[in-house]
Amino acid sequence: MKAPQRFPRNVTVFEVGPRDGLQNESRAIELASRLEFIRGLKQAGIQQIEAGAFVRPDRVPQMAASDQVFQELTSSREFWGPQYWALVPNAEGVKRAVAAGAKAIAVFTAASETFNQRNINLSIHESLARIREIVAEARRLKLRTRAYVSTAFGCPYEGRISPRRAIRVCEKLLELGVGQVSIGDTIGVATPKDVDAVVGPLVRDAGPALTAVHFHDTRGTALANTFRALEWGVSTVDASAGGLGGCPFAPGATGNLATEDLVYLLNGLGISTGIDLENLCRTSLRLAQAMGRPLSSRYLQTYAVQCGTAPFVQGQPGHGHSL
Amino acid sequence: MKAPQRFPRNVTVFEVGPRDGLQNESRAIELASRLEFIRGLKQAGIQQIEAGAFVRPDRVPQMAASDQVFQELTSSREFWGPQYWALVPNAEGVKRAVAAGAKAIAVFTAASETFNQRNINLSIHESLARIREIVAEARRLKLRTRAYVSTAFGCPYEGRISPRRAIRVCEKLLELGVGQVSIGDTIGVATPKDVDAVVGPLVRDAGPALTAVHFHDTRGTALANTFRALEWGVSTVDASAGGLGGCPFAPGATGNLATEDLVYLLNGLGISTGIDLENLCRTSLRLAQAMGRPLSSRYLQTYAVQCGTAPFVQGQPGHGHSL
Repeated sequence: MKAPQRFPRNVTVFEVGPRDGLQNESRAIELASRLEFIRGLKQAGIQQIEAGAFVRPDRVPQMAASDQVFQELTSSREFWGPQYWALVPNAEGVKRAVAAGAKAIAVFTAASETFNQRNINLSIHESLARIREIVAEARRLKLRTRAYVSTAFGCPYEGRISPRRAIRVCEKLLELGVGQVSIGDTIGVATPKDVDAVVGPLVRDAGPALTAVHFHDTRGTALANTFRALEWGVSTVDASAGGLGGCPFAPGATGNLATEDLVYLLNGLGISTGIDLENLCRTSLRLAQAMGRPLSSRYLQTYAVQCGTAPFVQGQPGHGHSL
Repeated sequence: MKAPQRFPRNVTVFEVGPRDGLQNESRAIELASRLEFIRGLKQAGIQQIEAGAFVRPDRVPQMAASDQVFQELTSSREFWGPQYWALVPNAEGVKRAVAAGAKAIAVFTAASETFNQRNINLSIHESLARIREIVAEARRLKLRTRAYVSTAFGCPYEGRISPRRAIRVCEKLLELGVGQVSIGDTIGVATPKDVDAVVGPLVRDAGPALTAVHFHDTRGTALANTFRALEWGVSTVDASAGGLGGCPFAPGATGNLATEDLVYLLNGLGISTGIDLENLCRTSLRLAQAMGRPLSSRYLQTYAVQCGTAPFVQGQPGHGHSL
């Protein structure tokens, strides 16, 4: 298939590190480190940041203090700053998020019935009904909304997901009035041909503004998939600083597309993001230090090596020859 | 710029792990492990393998036993099997390679004057003169040839390299009669726009058969660049099993594009390679075990996690939640 190659002039990087990233880390990090991380992302120029989730703290302890995160972030008197997004599973979550100061909320469902059932104990139909209520409430409260469609390309239980099913769920979400759907490759199986099959039709029908992509780098294809999505005109890309996070279905595997790698690609393509890449790297390295583990972003690894802060990235000391 | 999106139906994976990979590892591995590695690559169905280099063993100890490697590989009476390539710096290297049984030789120069000077103590002009002799000798001996153009996108000393310079060196090599030029992003700085600027004109003028790409994943862009090259019709892609190797200019950074990630992408695109991906992963994991260090391929990491052999790959145990 041929993509139209209508590259966007600007891309909105939607930073999910403080939520999708940290939530998939084995240990919860301290509130102070979370806040420092998010403020660093802001300083680096990121305009859309998913800062926390209002889910059950017993199930997702990494997101437990999200109330405080939002209170801190939204209490200042600044008249500029990023949009901070809160992930919410239901109306109760919306209440908590709004009480903490959130003005933008993200909801989630899946393209795989089995996945949705096992993940949130609802059929896709039931979760769409719940999202309908949330969106109505959000409209009343003048909150922005976006929706994640997990397992849009493949499912750990069902295997390959037909593009038609993924597209149908996205269309229903847009019919409900969500501001944007984020098409998620939860287990990182997609290749650019799958992007053509799912993202292509959606962008054609709904336009690029309503469509975001959310790739995981589990099999190394996240940036190639993103490039293909850009060829389709997609202009919002989800990413996680440092490549933070992982895959619950393959513990030890790589997490989200790394924001650094994404921004490096976009800079090279002449597509502007408003993000200061070096500033972003410093933020990610501080987080790696706070977490005491290396992060997987290739760009960050090279940056760290060149800055002499290599212990906090993956890799081996190389003493090769350059023939 | 728009690429023609003339995807090839088949891609030749040119495996450089046993040379470009191992040569950039800090420790030389045993002859037996090198041979087992190469035989594993063959078993996985790889048809083009750079098996060693006939360079100065005092400068590149990792490649010291290449004579024995070739003697072993070419001594069998098999009537089928991969093409084994030998990297040679000069006529003396050709002699050694041929004596050991090599029938295909790779030569190298660079697009950056400073890099070539510091790397092999020759100007580009001088190295082309040397390559002219090698190619003449190769023709006499009926050897296949290919040539690497290092630092075709960027140089650790000179910075950005103009596409015009890189293209000019490639053209001169083709004029000398080398069978293929491999356009090398030695320090891993390229993005798809650079691919357009260098690979695009070459493929247009010389045709895709004469043009190979050789990306390093130092900043995470290797697979996205490869995808763009495929859009230009390139059908030979260099890669290194497991992502073996590194970057001498950023010790600790990622090495070549990983063959596993490449094959996964190509499978997804419906482009055939003749390679059995699972078989390849087992080979890479055995090598990782022999080397006692994890390899950087994302696909391999996930494969290893799923097989329970995770200690030999990078990454952290993840216990996240999949919201």
